[in-house]
Amino acid sequence: MQIAILLYDGITALDAIGPYETLSRIPGARTVFVAERTGEHRTGSGDLALTADAVLSEVTAPDVLVVPGGTGQAALMDDGPLHDWLRAVDTRTTWTTSVCTGSLLLAAAGLLKGRRATSHWLALDRLPAHGVEPTGERVVFDGKYVTAAGVSSGIDMGLALVGRIAGDTHAQTVQLGIEYDPEPPYDAGSPEKAPAAITAAMRERSRFILDG
Amino acid sequence: MQIAILLYDGITALDAIGPYETLSRIPGARTVFVAERTGEHRTGSGDLALTADAVLSEVTAPDVLVVPGGTGQAALMDDGPLHDWLRAVDTRTTWTTSVCTGSLLLAAAGLLKGRRATSHWLALDRLPAHGVEPTGERVVFDGKYVTAAGVSSGIDMGLALVGRIAGDTHAQTVQLGIEYDPEPPYDAGSPEKAPAAITAAMRERSRFILDG
Repeated sequence: MQIAILLYDGITALDAIGPYETLSRIPGARTVFVAERTGEHRTGSGDLALTADAVLSEVTAPDVLVVPGGTGQAALMDDGPLHDWLRAVDTRTTWTTSVCTGSLLLAAAGLLKGRRATSHWLALDRLPAHGVEPTGERVVFDGKYVTAAGVSSGIDMGLALVGRIAGDTHAQTVQLGIEYDPEPPYDAGSPEKAPAAITAAMRERSRFILDG
Repeated sequence: MQIAILLYDGITALDAIGPYETLSRIPGARTVFVAERTGEHRTGSGDLALTADAVLSEVTAPDVLVVPGGTGQAALMDDGPLHDWLRAVDTRTTWTTSVCTGSLLLAAAGLLKGRRATSHWLALDRLPAHGVEPTGERVVFDGKYVTAAGVSSGIDMGLALVGRIAGDTHAQTVQLGIEYDPEPPYDAGSPEKAPAAITAAMRERSRFILDG
């Protein structure tokens, strides 16, 4: 089975690596990082590059598609070759998935119309413009479409998907392998749990980020 | 401030990305991925390459050093230029840290002697040979040395360290930014919590991995 993870400039690394570190541990799975061009793709800060080993035309029938988020996603919202590719491979996938603002890309390509989906909490209100019903859940399954909330939620999504694909025992094996027994030192991981001033400040700053 | 994250062939991606996605969000921080040679360094499966932008000799005084784990670590346990570099930069760091089996590298370089530390649960019993006291905690602070348990624990370590470096408010801001409000779909993230048969099977298989 093939897992295809999309890369682009301005990606958020953990959006891609959470699903990678879980899904790639499915027995027999091969993961390919795919992008409009091969080679390095840098995170928003520019501090880290991940390598794409294949161009879009080389990946035609992945079993699982993962679309990560990142500030660079704002530059990819217009229809074009990338959206064409998303629509084409979606006809072949068993699971079409996203993390964080990656769901905005799937939505912009028309793949989530009429479905329930999630995104980074700051981007949830962008989904209805694409005919998508936003939810506050961390991982949302709607048919073969699986969307995860912000950044770190891709680990939870990946484990849930490993369970669906390879069974509960294997998913638990992966969880144990990556020792995913979270102990966050704070309890501020959602807009409801974080101090109100922190949530408000981040909401204010984000106005500019999501528009690229 | 400079955060240096070590890369090598056979690294576990999430070991590096958990600290990256948290520590790199400290205001004014620059992160550099550093290795014995620049360019691509692949994960154990070979499916993903991360880029090192600097060689060891170019990074002489990082404020924070992060040593990730991975199966490739087994090939780096003998003393040599990498250990020399670890010892040299450690004299300049404010924090010397590791994730997963990265602590075995720090230990082999002699940096954890007489200290308490952790590692991937499968590797804890390798620490005493280097004069290190293993603990079952997820994140261990001992002076300026901070070690984290397996793979995903680097996120918890990163957040704890952001709190020490930039304060609680900023750490909570980072946690909210990466929406780190974990909801693992299973409760199998530690050897005590996973079904006994899963823990036993993984322990059996690991015998070969840790020896490279």
